[in-house]
Amino acid sequence: MKRKACAEVGIRSFDVDLPEDISEAALVAEVDRLNADHSVHGILVQLPLPKHINEEKILNQISIDKDVDGFHPLNIGRLAMKGRDPLFVPCTPKGCMELLSRSGVTVKGKRAVVVGRSNIVGLPVSLLLLKADATVTIVHSRTPNPESIVREADIVIAAAGQAMMIKGDWIKPGAAVIDVGTNSIDDPSRKSGYRLVGDVDFAEVSKVAGHLTPVPGGVGPMTVAMLLKNTVDGAKRGIVQ
Amino acid sequence: MKRKACAEVGIRSFDVDLPEDISEAALVAEVDRLNADHSVHGILVQLPLPKHINEEKILNQISIDKDVDGFHPLNIGRLAMKGRDPLFVPCTPKGCMELLSRSGVTVKGKRAVVVGRSNIVGLPVSLLLLKADATVTIVHSRTPNPESIVREADIVIAAAGQAMMIKGDWIKPGAAVIDVGTNSIDDPSRKSGYRLVGDVDFAEVSKVAGHLTPVPGGVGPMTVAMLLKNTVDGAKRGIVQ
Repeated sequence: MKRKACAEVGIRSFDVDLPEDISEAALVAEVDRLNADHSVHGILVQLPLPKHINEEKILNQISIDKDVDGFHPLNIGRLAMKGRDPLFVPCTPKGCMELLSRSGVTVKGKRAVVVGRSNIVGLPVSLLLLKADATVTIVHSRTPNPESIVREADIVIAAAGQAMMIKGDWIKPGAAVIDVGTNSIDDPSRKSGYRLVGDVDFAEVSKVAGHLTPVPGGVGPMTVAMLLKNTVDGAKRGIVQ
Repeated sequence: MKRKACAEVGIRSFDVDLPEDISEAALVAEVDRLNADHSVHGILVQLPLPKHINEEKILNQISIDKDVDGFHPLNIGRLAMKGRDPLFVPCTPKGCMELLSRSGVTVKGKRAVVVGRSNIVGLPVSLLLLKADATVTIVHSRTPNPESIVREADIVIAAAGQAMMIKGDWIKPGAAVIDVGTNSIDDPSRKSGYRLVGDVDFAEVSKVAGHLTPVPGGVGPMTVAMLLKNTVDGAKRGIVQ
């Protein structure tokens, strides 16, 4: 999907396929080669990496100027801090904010509840909502009675990775609900034997929410769009410098 | 206070007094000199800096191995991210967690409300509470009706910088309340003409809370203790390496 989207907007993308038994040192060297290549403006490392390779080390090796995923701790630190701006905002959280903004949902002064605290979605989207002046609560697997907290939210970001956990009676009428989940569940009626569902029970919540993103077709395509945007932004900065 | 505390535990501390009209380049060079000095294990830059100097640039110049304040964005990023650890946890937030732990307050699974979202207290203490498995809400100047949210908290961290804003009826009976505020208010009965108060109305809240830190004498001394601890930890790492 990413490759196709790149082609559509005129970004040249290419894969670097490496053997699974590549040494950590060789992978570091490969990242360094791409860091040094001025024709490359964004580098994505496909996770998970083989077990013998230190994921953190490889991700930290990506030049911060080409970290279009925005996962470098320096980027996350800047994202978190008032008065600092990251070079790249992680794509899915950025897409959530874009969806709210394009739908005319006010964030400032609103109660936002983020379900899930992953490094790639829950945490950074919480930080973005906070910077946008929402009152943010982060709910997670150790939260007793998450439904009572979600019920107070004007904005719900569902990023727990639990199929259809958020039910209709969890949602305040009129709330904006962004469903980041992508869970595969059995579905004998499909030829594939499964279908994709979100963290939100769409049939129930769509009757209560003011806004609700579908799965698939909601956050996913927006994430890809934000990845392209980050890459273009990075390339522009490269030209200016 | 920091100097005296250093002397008491056997840390050699020294001031580098620089003229107010020092150039940014000269200040950067001074930080670099201390970065390179193997007998120095912790560097604090006294804020605020004169207006002609870029504060962010100077703070970023401090070697991450000697950033005992823990304010470097790379440190904050690691603090925020699951599975990553900062080299130094910022002192006041670290002190809040120590106070909770030493008082036997369970954090895991509890509702925590942080009032204030500053880079030095509100934000990092929220991240620490989240990592410790609390359900965290961050309340700030754009939050309507903060009292109704604070009232749900088992743990309250008051770090808004508003004298005695948190009243007795904001607090759930038995809650643990950490008062990070240090506000100076007029007091004609004192020779100085003022006294220090926290963000919490101590007289009222002490009747309701299960735990409450005083101001002065609560978080302040614990912050200094954590600064010493960070410095010793940094020095130990220096020896091992």
